[in-house]
This record gives sequence, C-alpha cells and structure tokens, in this order.
Amino acid sequence: MNTHTDFLAALQGAVGADAVLRGESIPAACQSDWSGTPPVRPLALVRPASIDEACAVLRLCHAHHIPVVPQGGLTGLAGAAVPHAGGIALSLQRMAAIEAVDPRSGTLQAQAGATLQSIQQAAEQAGLRFGVDLGARGSCQIGGNVATNAGGNGVLQFGMMREQVLGLEVVLADGTVLPMLRPMLKNNTGYDLKHFFIGAEGTLGLITRVLLRLHPRPAARTTLLAAFSAFEQALALLQRLQGAFPARVAAFELMWERFVTCALRWQGGASPFAQTYPLLALIDIEGDADAPLQEAVQEQLALALEAQEVADAVLAQSQAQARQLWRMREAPAEFPTQLHPPINFDVSLPLPEIGRFAAQCQQRLDERWPGHATLYFGHVGDGNLHITTDGASVHHEEAALEAEVYALVEAFGGSVSAEHGIGLHKKPYLRASRSPQEIAAMRAIKQALDPLHLMNPGKVFN
Amino acid sequence: MNTHTDFLAALQGAVGADAVLRGESIPAACQSDWSGTPPVRPLALVRPASIDEACAVLRLCHAHHIPVVPQGGLTGLAGAAVPHAGGIALSLQRMAAIEAVDPRSGTLQAQAGATLQSIQQAAEQAGLRFGVDLGARGSCQIGGNVATNAGGNGVLQFGMMREQVLGLEVVLADGTVLPMLRPMLKNNTGYDLKHFFIGAEGTLGLITRVLLRLHPRPAARTTLLAAFSAFEQALALLQRLQGAFPARVAAFELMWERFVTCALRWQGGASPFAQTYPLLALIDIEGDADAPLQEAVQEQLALALEAQEVADAVLAQSQAQARQLWRMREAPAEFPTQLHPPINFDVSLPLPEIGRFAAQCQQRLDERWPGHATLYFGHVGDGNLHITTDGASVHHEEAALEAEVYALVEAFGGSVSAEHGIGLHKKPYLRASRSPQEIAAMRAIKQALDPLHLMNPGKVFN
Repeated sequence: MNTHTDFLAALQGAVGADAVLRGESIPAACQSDWSGTPPVRPLALVRPASIDEACAVLRLCHAHHIPVVPQGGLTGLAGAAVPHAGGIALSLQRMAAIEAVDPRSGTLQAQAGATLQSIQQAAEQAGLRFGVDLGARGSCQIGGNVATNAGGNGVLQFGMMREQVLGLEVVLADGTVLPMLRPMLKNNTGYDLKHFFIGAEGTLGLITRVLLRLHPRPAARTTLLAAFSAFEQALALLQRLQGAFPARVAAFELMWERFVTCALRWQGGASPFAQTYPLLALIDIEGDADAPLQEAVQEQLALALEAQEVADAVLAQSQAQARQLWRMREAPAEFPTQLHPPINFDVSLPLPEIGRFAAQCQQRLDERWPGHATLYFGHVGDGNLHITTDGASVHHEEAALEAEVYALVEAFGGSVSAEHGIGLHKKPYLRASRSPQEIAAMRAIKQALDPLHLMNPGKVFN
Repeated sequence: MNTHTDFLAALQGAVGADAVLRGESIPAACQSDWSGTPPVRPLALVRPASIDEACAVLRLCHAHHIPVVPQGGLTGLAGAAVPHAGGIALSLQRMAAIEAVDPRSGTLQAQAGATLQSIQQAAEQAGLRFGVDLGARGSCQIGGNVATNAGGNGVLQFGMMREQVLGLEVVLADGTVLPMLRPMLKNNTGYDLKHFFIGAEGTLGLITRVLLRLHPRPAARTTLLAAFSAFEQALALLQRLQGAFPARVAAFELMWERFVTCALRWQGGASPFAQTYPLLALIDIEGDADAPLQEAVQEQLALALEAQEVADAVLAQSQAQARQLWRMREAPAEFPTQLHPPINFDVSLPLPEIGRFAAQCQQRLDERWPGHATLYFGHVGDGNLHITTDGASVHHEEAALEAEVYALVEAFGGSVSAEHGIGLHKKPYLRASRSPQEIAAMRAIKQALDPLHLMNPGKVFN
C-alpha cells in the first residue's frame, strides 16, 4: 500500500491533483464499456492533458510496475477498455485537439482523444471527408478507432481504419515515444511500425496522436433496394456493380428474410415489394452527377434483371426515399427492447461462402433450439456478417450458442471478430481464427515491446 | 568445415541434390541483384520446389546456425537479396504456381515465386486486374514485391503492395509456419501479423504464399499532358482532378524542365507545346465510357485553365497519341547510356513541399557542383520524387552527393526510400527517416522473431 501511496503522490505531482480521480469520484461510466462487462474500479482514473503528461504517467507506471488500461470513448463491444483493479485507467478525453488539416495533401492530424465526429466535421470543413463512419461517432475516439482497427460503414470503398492511417505517435510502456508521423503515402524505410499498434487494442503501447488521410467528397449518391431469391444472385449483382462502378459502390448491406420481417413489424413499415424474398440488399453507389449516375444505375439494373441476377429492385428517386429505404437497416436499434436480450455476433467469412454459412448455421441452431429467433444481416459486401439471436429463444444458453456459432465459423475458415476486436470477451475463441503458431508470434511481439506486461494486461490473450 | 559438410549433406537429403548448387555452378546472376552490388558467392544456392521443402531448409539452417538470404527475381535496387558468404541463398524460382483465382471474391492465391507478370495475366484472364505494376514485372517475383512493399505505377489508385495483400504464409527462421491466408477483408482477431512481414525485406521470415485482392478493370482511360509555370499549379490541378474523379486518377507523373529537355533530345522527339515550361505532368484518368470521360476531362481542363491552375494542356485523342505522350516519361531507360553513370534517388516528401524541396536541392547542388546535371521526375501524385544525377557532373563524388540530398530530405521530414527499401545500400541513411527510438523498436521485433539473426542478416540494419 505504501508503494501505491508513493506512486499516487508522484502521479499527482506529474499531472496535477485534479487529473487523478480515486475511489468514489471515479465515474461509473469509466468502470466498464458498451460491452456490458461488470464494472471494475481502477486504482485511479488519470486524465493527462498533453502528450508530455501522458508520457510522464507511463514512465511512473513503468517504474512502479502498475498496469495501464487506455480508455477512449468506451464504446467498444469486446471489453478491451474495462479497467484493471490493480492498475490505472488512462483516459484520453483531455487530449482531443484537431491539430492540423491540410486540404492540399488531404491529411488531418489530431490528438488521440478527438471524437470520430469531430474528425469527420473537420474534414468536411476542409471540403473533404474521412473514410470511416460508425454509429458511435459522437462518443468514440479516434485513438480507440485506431487501436481496434474500426470498420463500420465506409469499408467497402475506403477499407478499415488501418487504411486511413498515414502516421501515429505511440508511447511504449516504458514512456519511450515513437514519433511515426511522417505524412507520406510511400515510406519504405525499415519495418512500418505503426501497423504493429493498429488493432492491438492498447496492448503494445498508448496511441497519442494520429495522422489521417482524407478523401474527396462525392458529388452524387444514389440508393437502391434489391430483392434476391438466392445468395448467388446477390453475389452476382455485387460483382456487376463493382465492375461497372469501380471504387464507387459505397454500401452493400444484405438482410435475410427474418431480419426484414422483424424490422418492418417493429418499425410499423411496409415492404416496397409485393411479395417477400429470402434476401434484400441496400446498395449505395456514388458518382459525379445525379442524372448520369441514376441513368447508369438503371441501365445496370436492367442488365441484371435480364441476367436473372436480381428478382426485383427499387431505385430511390429522392434523398427522402433513400432515407426511407435505409430505415429497415436501422432495426438493430430496436434489439435491446425487442430481444430478451440480444446475443450478438460479428463474424466475417470468405465472401462467396456467406450464403451457405448462414443456411448451415440456421440448420444447426434449429436442431438444438427449435423455434429460436436468429436474424442475419450485415456489411456483406466486405464479407462481414452480423448474427443476432434472441437470448430467451435459446433458453439463455449464451455460451453454448457461441460455441456452436464459432465452431462453424472456424470450419468455414472465417473470423470470429470482423470489426469489434477480441478484448476480454472473445479471448476463448481467438484460437478459432488464429493458429497456435500465430498466437505464439503475437506473444513474442508483446514480450518484445512490453516485457513487464503493463499495457492493457489480460486483453486479447492472457 | 565438417559442420558445413554435415549441413550440406542434410540439405541435399531434404530437397534433392539437384536443388543444391555449390561453387562454380552457382549462376553469376544469383550472386548479386540489379543494385550493382559486387557479387558474393554463398555457401550454397538452394531451390526448394514446395513449401514443405522450404520449411525443411529453414529448419536445417536453424539447427546449424546458417544464415538465409531469400532470393526472388533479383530486381531489387537496394541490395537486399545479395547473398551472405557464410550462408545459403534460398531461391523461390521453383515455387511459382498460381494456385487459385476467384473472380467472385476478387482474390488470387499464388506461391511466392510467381512473377508479377504471371499474377497480372491470371487476374486479366479472370476479367479483373492486379493493382501493382512496375517495369521489372517480367522478372520480379510477387514474394519479393511483398517483402519490399513494392510501389510502382498503381499506387495513386490502389496503394502500395501492402494494400493488395489479404493474406500471407510465412516461415519463421526456426521453420515454424504462420498460415495467415484467410481471405477476409475484415479480421480483427489479435495482431494482424502479416503486416510485420510486408516491407521487412526478408529479415523476419520467408514469405512462401500470398493471397491478393484484385480490382475491376476500367472501361475507359484517357491521358493528358499538362504544362505548369509553378509547382503550386500542379498541386491545384491534382487536387481538382482527384475531387472530380475520385479514385480514378491513375497516374500523375511530374517532370521538371531539364528532364523533359533531355528526354526529347535523347528520343529525338518534339514537345507538343510551342514553348517550354518549368513543369509538365502526364496524367491518366479512368472512367466508365470513352466519350463521357473525354468530355468530363475537357470540362475540368477548361475550369482549370480559367482558374490558372494550368498553363497549357494536350488531351490525347487516341490510344496511339496517349502512348506518344507517355514516351517522354520512359526516358529513364536511356540513363545507363546517357549518364556516366546515373546516381539514382527514390525519396518521398510531404506532397505540398515537393516543389520547394526540388528548388532547394537544385540550389545546394549548384553551389557545390556548378554545372552538375540533375533530373527531377516521379510519381508525384503520391509524394514520390525520383532524382538522377550524372555521376561525371559531380566528379563521381557519390557519397558526398548522397549525404547532401539525404540531409535535405531529413530536413523536410521526408523518406530516404519511398519504394525501393533499405537493403544494404541505404542503411547509413535509415536514421534520416526513422528516430533512434523507432530503430530500437525494430531491433526488438527482429530479436523476438529471429533471435539467432539468421534471416537476411545485415540487411535494413546491422
């Protein structure tokens, strides 16, 4: 305890007493994250206001062998930001400056605590846009987005968060700063270290600054809802559209019949189609001008209908109609009230296998839990499938359900986490997507960069 | 020596006597690479014909503490594939199979020894294209392209080699296989290990298989040659075109006046412009159909002329004219005969700084070597500048010239190697683009994955 007293006094000396919260004064919200993990109260919640302060905190933690859990916007769904009872939680919320936006080179530099929304807005003010978007944009922080290699709505066009990162500043466990902020797209000078920290969920170092690339804003965007009688049709249409509009297919969200039925019932909506179909896809395509884009999409749709790649389709005639079509994709907002409770999966699979996977998964669950309620939907254009089961319909056997689903994911050579990460929650299933040799190599890297195992201990692997 | 006899006998047992060449039977071409490094004869040249054989070779080398230098097409310009006199050279040339092409998911799997050209052709046969292209395509191997994170002609649209890699199979120094071949774009399950090996120039492991993403082929492509009175104009036009044709500007190659003058003189060509300009840019833009693309580009050119972002421009009216315009960019093929000898630089800089950098570089060299002949050109759209000096014009003071140029690159926060890598040749300048802390982190990673320092020792850093 005496050591902790010394440590805490040194901490207060380094960052100021008001930046070190203890005991009851630590907000409940900082004791867990959106994953719903039971709260853990850390030794202290520390809120440095500058890179120098953050370094000082890490140096002190290193000297006293105190674990550090980096905390961004706490919107993670895998529990990676849940505090460690014997360590500090290091909040980035006071390091939220947008430091520079350069429209000429299409780059933006920010401190890691800046919210995703503030990054998006700064890009827009410069006449550009940022390539990553997700529902938690108002709360999640860019440092957390990088640490978890966030996915979301822009992946089909711009790739994951990793593809947006030109540079990072990272502080290692011992307080060493790695200044990897050179803005060049091309820099083949030794190992590209920044990639080691992207997606490492805070286990290798603390991300303090990010240098991001921005993209041009599209002049036109259109939405269509397509209906399919089989998965192979959807795959053929996706391929056709990506061939006809290279790099401009912005969304291809597939929804299985049961998802659509629930969405319409919960929202009191009606399908634009006269009959039901096994699959619907919401598709966004961007172009250089409204009328030619609309015309080109209509032309491709006609060819697709002729080639029997689509059973029926509606092309939005206005922004209002586009929003209307998108509404059913927003049904997951109803999950917490309609399902008891929802059990969520975020998996990815080799693209051509998704239809067969969903059918086999349904069959397996049917056998074990007759009458279970399971919905399939997702950013299928990039191989990402979301599955949500009503907990009550599987008698709340969550662990058994997970084992069943992840075993099938493994059999299909898929990933147990497409975009949410491993954190605490998916640790038991890491081996379903990574070989023992890969996990051993990860451990060797961890040992090399954080030999005392102080950075976010117990996350990703033990 | 006895140990070597045992080792060589074991090697022959593992891969067959015909796969182990020694002494005079080792071809001269395998004793160096395109960098012009003096040849080094290895202990043996080993040519495994399968992944299993490659693993067996690495296990034997590990057991006997014999260094391994992986060799692809030997087209590298930094000396990374030059043999080690006390070790083996491991040639991938017998592992060149294209194993699978899947047009539905847009993926291609190949063994590491497949040439870049064979990858490109397989993609084209499937109605798609591969995003990386470079002059050495017929000789260079895809494993080497990955190990050096190759750049080349497609970077502006598709990014570097790293962005094309969905998965890798890598053999570590001790023979452990890391099977990282899952084809999903989204896979957030622990550290994304494949990124550790991309651009590591064979110092962390042997790449044996690659899984690549393919892109749709464009329906239309047009070429224009634009003339500028200042760098800022070129930057403004690039920004305008990238805004008007997002993800479709395929090339933006800038050529300074002296480069253009030499190109026209050597090739016996004539400029399409009535006067000379400080800068010309060759620009390729892709679209969905010929006529609308031509029209849209003309429209943007008119706006650019009005905004004084361009001094003059020629838009190719045919493929033949496009090839004619591109001819002057191919002048580097004349360097070996016209310069005595050429001293080449491959640097990258923050995009908006390239004009100022070139001017300052010229001024510094003018002061030290009055009358020197230095040409500036490059893939400027992605920040990459090539500089070539006639060795005779700087009295063959190559080391002094390098020190001068790289010091300025460091002062501008640029990279001493944009796309060629560090290898042997740029080791003295690595610290100009990476901090001591970054280099220490690289060494820690090397120590973690190759503790005996057997993989390509002495390359990238000592």
